[in-house]
Amino acid sequence: MASDNPTGAVNQQERPGIEQWVVGFVDGEGCFSVSVVRNDGCLLGWQVQHEFSVTQAAPSRAALDLVREVFGCGSIIEQRRKDGRHHSLLRFSVKRRADLVTAVLPFFERNPLKTVKQLDFERFRSVLRLMQEGVHLTEAGLRRIAQETARMNRKAPSRYLESSEAIRQPPRPDTEVKRWSEPHGDMWSNSSEIPCRVK
Amino acid sequence: MASDNPTGAVNQQERPGIEQWVVGFVDGEGCFSVSVVRNDGCLLGWQVQHEFSVTQAAPSRAALDLVREVFGCGSIIEQRRKDGRHHSLLRFSVKRRADLVTAVLPFFERNPLKTVKQLDFERFRSVLRLMQEGVHLTEAGLRRIAQETARMNRKAPSRYLESSEAIRQPPRPDTEVKRWSEPHGDMWSNSSEIPCRVK
Repeated sequence: MASDNPTGAVNQQERPGIEQWVVGFVDGEGCFSVSVVRNDGCLLGWQVQHEFSVTQAAPSRAALDLVREVFGCGSIIEQRRKDGRHHSLLRFSVKRRADLVTAVLPFFERNPLKTVKQLDFERFRSVLRLMQEGVHLTEAGLRRIAQETARMNRKAPSRYLESSEAIRQPPRPDTEVKRWSEPHGDMWSNSSEIPCRVK
Repeated sequence: MASDNPTGAVNQQERPGIEQWVVGFVDGEGCFSVSVVRNDGCLLGWQVQHEFSVTQAAPSRAALDLVREVFGCGSIIEQRRKDGRHHSLLRFSVKRRADLVTAVLPFFERNPLKTVKQLDFERFRSVLRLMQEGVHLTEAGLRRIAQETARMNRKAPSRYLESSEAIRQPPRPDTEVKRWSEPHGDMWSNSSEIPCRVK
C-alpha cells in the first residue's frame, strides 16, 4: 500500500534524528536487491523484481516497526531460519515500485548512506529509473538493466543473462556483459506484484 | 588513549543527527563483548576483558572513521578474513576501560539502542560498573561478573566457569551459575591491556 506520508517528515519532527538512525541501521543491516526471474505473464517472459529490506531477529521487531513507520510503506515478513537458531527472522520489505520510487529513493537522496552500501543504492535507483521509463519492456533494455545490476554486490549468476533470450542478443560494443545475481531466488515465490506489462 | 572529547558533543553540533546515525549503525553492526581469559599476571589468574566493536568490510572504512571520531577513542584494526572474500575486515575497537566508561557508556545512556542489543549494552555496563568497584578482584566477584555476562547473547562456554578455580566456589543460593561465553577467544592475544591488579 502506498504511504500517506512518504517523506517521513512528521516522524523527523516528532523524533529528531530518527532519519539518521534509519540511515545507520540500513548502513548496517539494509539490502537493496534486484533480480530477474522467469514469469510467463510478462512481455519478455522475464520479470524484474526489486526490494529494499532490513532483516532482524524477532526480538528486535520494534526496530523494524520504527523503520516501517519512517518510510510509511512496506511490510514485515517472518522468515523461517535455516540455521537452527531459536528466534525467527523478520524482514522489513518494500517491493512495490511506487513505494520505492516515492518513499525509499527520496529518503536516501535526502539522507545518503555512509558505507559502501551507498553504491548499491545508486545502482538500485538507476534500475528503478530505467524501469520508470519502461526500458525493461524491451530485450535491449532488460539486458541494460541486467548489466547495471551486475555491478551490485551479489553472488549468484543470473538465470536471465544465461538464458537463450539473452544469449541470442549480442552485447552492444560499448558495454560488457557481466553475470547478474539473484540472491533471494526463493523469496519472490509468493509475490503478488507483477511490475511488467502482460503479454 | 583517552579522548579529549569523550562526549562527542562537537560532532553532534557540527553534524546534526550524527549520534543517531551511530546508534543505528551500532544497532546493526555493533558488538558489546566481555570475556574471562587466563592471565597469570592477574591476581586470580584470570582477566576480564571487555570490548565495544563495530566491524565492516574495508571499503566502508570511512564509516568506521566516523564512528571513531564520534567516540573520540578506540582504534581501527584490520582482521584477516577466513571466508576467502576479497576485502579484508576492519574492526573499530574500544577495549580500554577508561574509554569505555568515559565515552562509550555515556554515549549510549544519552542515545539508547533501539534493538534487543540494548540488553547487551546494559549487561556490558553492569560488568564495567562492577569492575569500577573492584569486584573482579575477588573470586566471588569474578563469579558474579561471569554470571552477569552469561546472560549476554553469546555462544561458547566459559573457560573460567569450567575451571577448577570457579568450580571449587559453590554458587550463592540466590544465583544461578550459567555458562559464559568467549566469542572472540583469539582476538585478545595481542592485547596490551591488563585491566587487573598484578600479583
